Amino acid sequence: MRVALGQFNAIVGDLAGNARKMCEVYKRAIADGVDLLIFPELAICGYPPEDLLHKAHFLKDCHKAVEKFAADCCEIYIIVGFPSVDNGNTYNSAAVLQAGQIKTVYQKSLLPNFGVFDEKRYFKAGDISVVLEIGGITTAITICLDIWDTNWLANFFKDAGNIQLLVNISASPFHMSKIEKRHQVISLCAQRLGCAVLYCNLVGGQDEIVFDGRSIMADSTGEIILQAKAFKEDLLIGDVKLTKESGINVSAVSKCVAESVDPLDEVYQALVLGTRDYAKKNGFEKVLLGLSGGIDSSVTTSIAVAALGPENVIGITMPSKFNSPETIADAGKVAKNLGIEFLNIPIESVLEQFDGSLQAVAGWDDKGIAYENLQARIRGTMLMSLSNQFGALVLTSGNKSETAVGYATLYGDTAGGFAVIKDVPKTLIYELAQYINKINKRELIPAEVITRPPSAELRPEQKDTDSLPDYDLLDEILKGYVEEDKSATQLIAEGLPREVVSRIIKMVDRNEYKRRQSPPGIKITPKAFGKDRRLPITNRYVGGTEQ
Amino acid sequence: MRVALGQFNAIVGDLAGNARKMCEVYKRAIADGVDLLIFPELAICGYPPEDLLHKAHFLKDCHKAVEKFAADCCEIYIIVGFPSVDNGNTYNSAAVLQAGQIKTVYQKSLLPNFGVFDEKRYFKAGDISVVLEIGGITTAITICLDIWDTNWLANFFKDAGNIQLLVNISASPFHMSKIEKRHQVISLCAQRLGCAVLYCNLVGGQDEIVFDGRSIMADSTGEIILQAKAFKEDLLIGDVKLTKESGINVSAVSKCVAESVDPLDEVYQALVLGTRDYAKKNGFEKVLLGLSGGIDSSVTTSIAVAALGPENVIGITMPSKFNSPETIADAGKVAKNLGIEFLNIPIESVLEQFDGSLQAVAGWDDKGIAYENLQARIRGTMLMSLSNQFGALVLTSGNKSETAVGYATLYGDTAGGFAVIKDVPKTLIYELAQYINKINKRELIPAEVITRPPSAELRPEQKDTDSLPDYDLLDEILKGYVEEDKSATQLIAEGLPREVVSRIIKMVDRNEYKRRQSPPGIKITPKAFGKDRRLPITNRYVGGTEQ
Repeated sequence: MRVALGQFNAIVGDLAGNARKMCEVYKRAIADGVDLLIFPELAICGYPPEDLLHKAHFLKDCHKAVEKFAADCCEIYIIVGFPSVDNGNTYNSAAVLQAGQIKTVYQKSLLPNFGVFDEKRYFKAGDISVVLEIGGITTAITICLDIWDTNWLANFFKDAGNIQLLVNISASPFHMSKIEKRHQVISLCAQRLGCAVLYCNLVGGQDEIVFDGRSIMADSTGEIILQAKAFKEDLLIGDVKLTKESGINVSAVSKCVAESVDPLDEVYQALVLGTRDYAKKNGFEKVLLGLSGGIDSSVTTSIAVAALGPENVIGITMPSKFNSPETIADAGKVAKNLGIEFLNIPIESVLEQFDGSLQAVAGWDDKGIAYENLQARIRGTMLMSLSNQFGALVLTSGNKSETAVGYATLYGDTAGGFAVIKDVPKTLIYELAQYINKINKRELIPAEVITRPPSAELRPEQKDTDSLPDYDLLDEILKGYVEEDKSATQLIAEGLPREVVSRIIKMVDRNEYKRRQSPPGIKITPKAFGKDRRLPITNRYVGGTEQ
Repeated sequence: MRVALGQFNAIVGDLAGNARKMCEVYKRAIADGVDLLIFPELAICGYPPEDLLHKAHFLKDCHKAVEKFAADCCEIYIIVGFPSVDNGNTYNSAAVLQAGQIKTVYQKSLLPNFGVFDEKRYFKAGDISVVLEIGGITTAITICLDIWDTNWLANFFKDAGNIQLLVNISASPFHMSKIEKRHQVISLCAQRLGCAVLYCNLVGGQDEIVFDGRSIMADSTGEIILQAKAFKEDLLIGDVKLTKESGINVSAVSKCVAESVDPLDEVYQALVLGTRDYAKKNGFEKVLLGLSGGIDSSVTTSIAVAALGPENVIGITMPSKFNSPETIADAGKVAKNLGIEFLNIPIESVLEQFDGSLQAVAGWDDKGIAYENLQARIRGTMLMSLSNQFGALVLTSGNKSETAVGYATLYGDTAGGFAVIKDVPKTLIYELAQYINKINKRELIPAEVITRPPSAELRPEQKDTDSLPDYDLLDEILKGYVEEDKSATQLIAEGLPREVVSRIIKMVDRNEYKRRQSPPGIKITPKAFGKDRRLPITNRYVGGTEQ
């Protein structure tokens, strides 16, 4: 039996558009002699549709769209994800389409309600397995998390006889090195059930999530035979055959094979795709951003150019008296290297006028933190004014380390629609900068941008290290506290310096209010700020710090 | 048996502080001869602790805090909510404390995972009922949602024999008229099980939620015998007695009785308490806000004054050339009436300087929407500068109608830490203004502020009705679309004008990105923006509008 995985980029809510895309994939599959074509989880409506699922008319429209798709694409078996309604309950389902109709529906059993997932908010868990003959092969259908607990899975199918092919439709968000876990899970399932596995994942960016594709076909020994492209649409085709001696074979028809995973390349591609999709799916052709001559905005701009083309990126430098001639010049160099439009709008005169107006208030101080933040807010306002005028999306350049400790000005450098590197720790930003230069085979980002000690340049001689520890240490603390939920006691026991750990943890906790008002950005780590990590703003818990 | 409900204002994460408060309540209860003292759901850590529950050290600290509380308050029975860990799983639990120890633990069975609730993200559902003899009375313990499905409840206790007293510890968030539903539920439970009901609710503000207290004692006929104060701490005491003829009697020891519910008064009190608690629990003594002379900022300021006292509220008017002398004068009148500090910081010179700098960019237009937004952003920056300088919390004044359709400038009038009237529709703002004048027995808010046609005053002769329908119509559409998830087709079928409905729905959908970056505000309706309503930003679904 010839099978195909239709790994495509769905848009949340675009039912007709998603169906149209799948129809095109179907035509290519037909031409290639495919018997069974598989699309990702909730492919008809995109993932995650969130509270759209609370609208009765949305659910009806999804059902109609699947029925129409079945009628339009009736020559082979198709499996496609959609939200189904049964007896007043909503399920995360897979429809098996055959001969123009919905032949059967499987309702997802294991619903993730952790991390970025809220599936128990919307769906009832199914508890009925669906196993059917397709092309003479006993095929079981599962959805995403269903296969991640192999013991549960084996039990679920214990009365189903000998399963030869396990289909899994997924919408599995990217984070660094997650592909390795997927390989393990898929191999384990194949071995445990003694069947081939067809794993079809979504691809594309949706708000703070990127789906990385890399759909997989494995044979019944658990070997990964075929893997679809990373971060791109793909149609992965293989032949599934029963053999007497060696179980269920899968042979490649597509040429793609599993690529080795370079973590930097993964992150880079995730950021590029996440940025491109956020802009395009929200109707933006152009983006603009502040270009300071620092490493964060240089990396962000490079990613924006890779995502949208240099003709669609505008870099704006907005110097004050505190910006050195070197950084201003570096901003210009980066813009020139990337071939983007570059504007220079000094903020000094506006800053003076603002300061002058505020001098009327007794106690106003033109040297403190308020005055520093004022500069950042003038820049944020400049960018937003240009955004409103020209319809370009503002990208922000705050990294994860800054975002964690609140080393940013709310409505200043956090002002914008999309926070490209929000989940990238500063130490990884340095590696990304080097990587960007490497793949471009030249110094897109000048060496001095990478080597200069980082500074916000909001007061004379300012350095990040005035307020923060070295980034190596900061990122180690943040990984333990933010991503691994360790306490100060644990981190100190691991050898991290007591005073710094306590201070950083307090900064993280105290700045939840800033993060709550920050734009979404692309998740690349196991735990990102946003839907992935939900802490109260009002929170007096200090048990994480040493008392 | 003498029973008491310790309705108190817990602070999320403040384990020691919450225990200290409960100890004080305990001492008063002891003095009043109480045998059984009941505290709300998750009283030890506050509700909702959100992802604090993912920290192993937090869970351990909660357990330790309950053990210490048990040891400190050992003379009577106490029931108190806390997160418990059993066999690696976390439960939302009620501890029964007796003689200095945790005597038994009930694990909540029905976990809400809808609206503002995410309990399935954190907790495993319990499935074991706890029924015990306290003071010779057969007492069953439940937590919040457990009693909202009476059929489930009756089945849960079907083997437990004759229950005489049902205890329910809750953290039930306020919305308008919810108290009536609680009365129904409690009466129904009492009648169904033939037992008295002791319902202890939390009180206080936590980010976007306000708990309204109003703990309840009902007898076995379902009659509400006693109700604790609304929006205030209270110790509600009653005597529970078994009688031969009439079931389980409850007689009042406390003087409080159920007050009649005035919806305006409820909303007003919720806003006052929510504002006070957000400020105080986050360490702010003072607040400041823009005072335009319009009705929204006048109402917001009145609430802030009621919450924090006039000495802690600063009103700032920031006129441009588009503000009429009348509104500027009205801003001053409101400030004077309320007795608050009032600053006047004209923005015209900053606006000119900004505009001058932006003129350098080809295509900049000093008459369009970007120029209008620029004024709002200058004001937002002024307020944030003063906030940074003086440590006062900025309150925003956007109402629910504006928030829904995006009639607001991101980083402009949305800039601030807390959005007091974010969930109050404009039509209700008018009623609140009248109500505020009524309870203050004078025109705190001048009549002309209430009667003048609303305007953002960002261009000459601007009126809200240039962009929006009349607020009566707008609010009717928004209630149907936002709160009730109706489609355009439904709303039009109900007689609302087709063109307006389609236009408004598109505005609501398109402005999700602004709401995502807005400050939290107090939920007063059945569905508020924020955790209560989670829609993707990237969303092409237009099925809600007529095609």
